[in-house]
Amino acid sequence: MVNRFEAIMSRVEQNPDKKRCAVVCADGPTREAVREAETRGLIQAEFFSGDLAPMEAVRGVHAGQFDILLKGNIDTAVLLKEVVNKEYGLLTGRLISHVALLDVPRYHKLLLLTDGGMVMYPDLDQLRGILENAAGVMRRLGVELPKVACLAAVEKVHERMPETVRAAALKELQQTGEIRDCLVEGPISFDLAFDREAGRTKGYDSPVAGDADVFLVPDFVSGNLLAKSLVYGGGARFAGFLAGARAPVILTSRASSAEEKLYSIACSALVSSLSN
Amino acid sequence: MVNRFEAIMSRVEQNPDKKRCAVVCADGPTREAVREAETRGLIQAEFFSGDLAPMEAVRGVHAGQFDILLKGNIDTAVLLKEVVNKEYGLLTGRLISHVALLDVPRYHKLLLLTDGGMVMYPDLDQLRGILENAAGVMRRLGVELPKVACLAAVEKVHERMPETVRAAALKELQQTGEIRDCLVEGPISFDLAFDREAGRTKGYDSPVAGDADVFLVPDFVSGNLLAKSLVYGGGARFAGFLAGARAPVILTSRASSAEEKLYSIACSALVSSLSN
Repeated sequence: MVNRFEAIMSRVEQNPDKKRCAVVCADGPTREAVREAETRGLIQAEFFSGDLAPMEAVRGVHAGQFDILLKGNIDTAVLLKEVVNKEYGLLTGRLISHVALLDVPRYHKLLLLTDGGMVMYPDLDQLRGILENAAGVMRRLGVELPKVACLAAVEKVHERMPETVRAAALKELQQTGEIRDCLVEGPISFDLAFDREAGRTKGYDSPVAGDADVFLVPDFVSGNLLAKSLVYGGGARFAGFLAGARAPVILTSRASSAEEKLYSIACSALVSSLSN
Repeated sequence: MVNRFEAIMSRVEQNPDKKRCAVVCADGPTREAVREAETRGLIQAEFFSGDLAPMEAVRGVHAGQFDILLKGNIDTAVLLKEVVNKEYGLLTGRLISHVALLDVPRYHKLLLLTDGGMVMYPDLDQLRGILENAAGVMRRLGVELPKVACLAAVEKVHERMPETVRAAALKELQQTGEIRDCLVEGPISFDLAFDREAGRTKGYDSPVAGDADVFLVPDFVSGNLLAKSLVYGGGARFAGFLAGARAPVILTSRASSAEEKLYSIACSALVSSLSN
């Protein structure tokens, strides 16, 4: 099996122009991950602590002094309040959504799952923003035409299942050219998106079947359950950050390992590097 | 690792009073699974075919001639219409819900996931019915006091996240004695329900943490995604049937393997056996 997060780290290491990471209120695991990332040559870090740390770090990113924002041991809400500040925050006019990159041993490539953490019950417009953020991240990771699976429990559109209606609408937006530079399929069930053989058995013909890059979920509850089942049930490794802001924002939780923070830093550095 | 579906099959094999299974419109994989189940001494089967097969089989279960109903190659809707027939169907007054039994290599015991297939967007009353059906199945499988995890993305109750409100309400129903013979926790995230270590890291103290028997999802979309990610991402083996009817109803899909049908037959036979 290709060690896919390590492949991303190698690419970031080889970039001579190291990305600068603002670290807010680092705790032990955060400090450990940042030191490891610096040792590997992934980033250059600066630490902010104290009550003003969230504001100072966000102002620094706003001013272009930093390419990545990394949350340590503070409430997510406190940091997000600064991120969305209209004067000095990181808003770009795009929707801000969460992307999880998962390295699942039983899948043949890195996959992106969204949005399991930021936009709770998205409507069609928000789903479109989530989709476009995700496709953009995948392109910056080197996938030229990302394949997006708009997940549901079934493949048919039923009016009484609103997630199937929205999935079909997203597919149509891509087919009419409203959504560009990606290939959208939906509604599609998880087995068909994940497993080529399942598609053959069900006679489901789509280039996205068994080969999706982006797994777009209907809401954050299903996304959260799905990501955690892939990590705990499927042995997946996880990286996560916010997309759609001026810079990637890494919001790892208290339970996140130093390893998870390290992968998040590496992926953020690659996304940041190629978007400038 | 204990081979847990095989343990269930052993128990069923040892029962001298073989359960009787009505098979509706068998196709190749269904016939293969039924023959294997008969060879192993799990059941005695009778096959129904033709246009009247769904009605005839359901009438037979209603009359007590059969203990299990197994769907072959017909539309689920066609069979369900007979199951819910008020004159000769299998209604008991309880909610009919779908239970999936999953043998996940990374989990230390068989787990039950519900409802990923029948009740689409349950309200609190329906969730209670789903929960009670699931706990009943688990008790019949030998778990005296099933531990039920009412899943959400977070552990705190937020009014703007209705699934957390309903999960807390279910926990309260158990604590006040309205729901009996099981232990209910919620809202609880998947990692805390599945992984003991995650609970320790987050300082989450509950007997259900890392040891849930029943994983209760907020709706069928998240349940469907979760079950399929455990099967395809986690290498889990799957069995499924409807609970709450007069007899277990096995609704395996066209894509189901003979193996999946066999496990479903074995679990249904055990549930049926001990409920009479």
